[in-house]
Amino acid sequence: MSRIAVVGAGGVVGREMLRLLAEQPWVEEPPLVYGSPRSRGQRLSFREHALDLAVLGEAPLPRCSLALFAAGAAVAREWAPRFADNGALVIDNSSAFRMDPEVPLVIPEINAGALGPGPGIVANPNCSTIILLVAVNALRALGRCRIFCATYQAVSGAGRAGLEALAREQAGGPFEPFQPFPFPIGSNLFPLIGSIEGQAEHCTEERKIVEESRRILGDPTLAVYVTCVRVPIQRCHSEAITLLYEAPVSLAHARALLAEAPGVELSTDPARPPLPGPLAGTLSVHVGRVRQPAPEVLQLWAVGDQLLKGAAWNAVQIASLWRAAG
Amino acid sequence: MSRIAVVGAGGVVGREMLRLLAEQPWVEEPPLVYGSPRSRGQRLSFREHALDLAVLGEAPLPRCSLALFAAGAAVAREWAPRFADNGALVIDNSSAFRMDPEVPLVIPEINAGALGPGPGIVANPNCSTIILLVAVNALRALGRCRIFCATYQAVSGAGRAGLEALAREQAGGPFEPFQPFPFPIGSNLFPLIGSIEGQAEHCTEERKIVEESRRILGDPTLAVYVTCVRVPIQRCHSEAITLLYEAPVSLAHARALLAEAPGVELSTDPARPPLPGPLAGTLSVHVGRVRQPAPEVLQLWAVGDQLLKGAAWNAVQIASLWRAAG
Repeated sequence: MSRIAVVGAGGVVGREMLRLLAEQPWVEEPPLVYGSPRSRGQRLSFREHALDLAVLGEAPLPRCSLALFAAGAAVAREWAPRFADNGALVIDNSSAFRMDPEVPLVIPEINAGALGPGPGIVANPNCSTIILLVAVNALRALGRCRIFCATYQAVSGAGRAGLEALAREQAGGPFEPFQPFPFPIGSNLFPLIGSIEGQAEHCTEERKIVEESRRILGDPTLAVYVTCVRVPIQRCHSEAITLLYEAPVSLAHARALLAEAPGVELSTDPARPPLPGPLAGTLSVHVGRVRQPAPEVLQLWAVGDQLLKGAAWNAVQIASLWRAAG
Repeated sequence: MSRIAVVGAGGVVGREMLRLLAEQPWVEEPPLVYGSPRSRGQRLSFREHALDLAVLGEAPLPRCSLALFAAGAAVAREWAPRFADNGALVIDNSSAFRMDPEVPLVIPEINAGALGPGPGIVANPNCSTIILLVAVNALRALGRCRIFCATYQAVSGAGRAGLEALAREQAGGPFEPFQPFPFPIGSNLFPLIGSIEGQAEHCTEERKIVEESRRILGDPTLAVYVTCVRVPIQRCHSEAITLLYEAPVSLAHARALLAEAPGVELSTDPARPPLPGPLAGTLSVHVGRVRQPAPEVLQLWAVGDQLLKGAAWNAVQIASLWRAAG
């Protein structure tokens, strides 16, 4: 295999991609790492190697077989097609290509079959979408349902700036508007992620979850009603999920399905539900408090490290699949 | 009117009761204030007066016309009947009498008519129940619906000890188990408030919300599916609410109803939803992000100061109603 590139390697997701790639036995050489002009001069590590961040466009485009993108949508729109045209499979973590019908949108536990042989672009879904769907997809054998979801999203979903804002405020420092949140976050929460869109008045994050869920599950009229909320914790997104079925379902069956589902870690003691604080750094979607308030209703609580299974790990899983296929 | 007593006056809710009573023109004399033996010697203020906390049982029971209880359920079970037998209307903020069919459970905006002339006991509902129902009841003209709710509950719901635990951890201090949370709260959240109960596996807070909602709205089969979550903020509970109707409803009608509802402050700019941080100290239930993802579905976000409208203010409202009626 020729080289691997990581674009946006200096950010919170890019660094996790690099760390996870270093743990993959099929990755032989250190990746080429790219960052924004303002990250110039940063040095990253990969196994025993020190890597210097390069800036895209300042040297000829490298020939890579695989490129993991952890940059924003604008960088992805400009550079992902160039890497693909140059022979790479690009796995892009931004929203740029997720709803492009030509680009597969992949959660390996759910729709690995959508992944083609490449070169080309593959989209990594939104972090909250991944956590929701890994849990909900495990229950598909129970039948069709409406999904009601409220999220509890960590500040690192907004990158390092989000972490810095939380730490600064909790240390008694000033609230600086728009860096990156337009509101104090230290002892507050905010029921809106992204911006309000159009007449439907969902926010960007809510629209992504609805659209991507329908696409990944192949159900264009799937009912997903979601409220996205930023909470003052560092890492891991949590989701309170209620599923309303058309007919009564079996709680025992639901628990059995979750216990066996790939990518799911089921907590069976209701008094010890998954917690976002202690679960930072884990790769699974952790599900607990599975209960049934009415015969046709299931409730569950899901937690995932949104930088890992919600981003870097899902991308590295896709890369491993692609590599194994050939 | 003879004297007023506040029991549990030294706690976070009791102090708010005292502060709000001081603002009521019909309250003439300083209340008698009672606390637990360990709060002995504390001094509270009421207008220009300093009040010494007394301990119940260490002196003859006073003759009061009104007693506001902000103590726990055990204290309420022992002492509320004695105050009532001695001639007082007791407004109890604990869970002790809420499901007692002989005791009215009152949110003044919803069922003021349930309040009798006294003496006797009146129960103040659970804080999250009050915030949910003030918002949902405003929409009753739209028809019957199922209620899906996820809560975001502040640490002060666990009293001063909750605030101290959050402050201590955020200042880098130790996590001390079971004081009052059985888990770190500084950069964490916990989807369980109270304890897990029986085969249904709801937690105490979830059961309270379901049972009290059915009782207050007079609908014993009302569908309420709720997940209760403690979040690391100081004050104000927030709730992500989705309502599923049996037939399509009008969003414009819903907004008009909320705009005119007593006790509701409607935020009409979706980009400026109500936030718990800045709303600490306010008396209303603040509602925003009212939207309609499907013809028969409404979503909204509600925030209330759980120590005020969720506790002390609801009790003082009941007291004012009773006073005005009598």
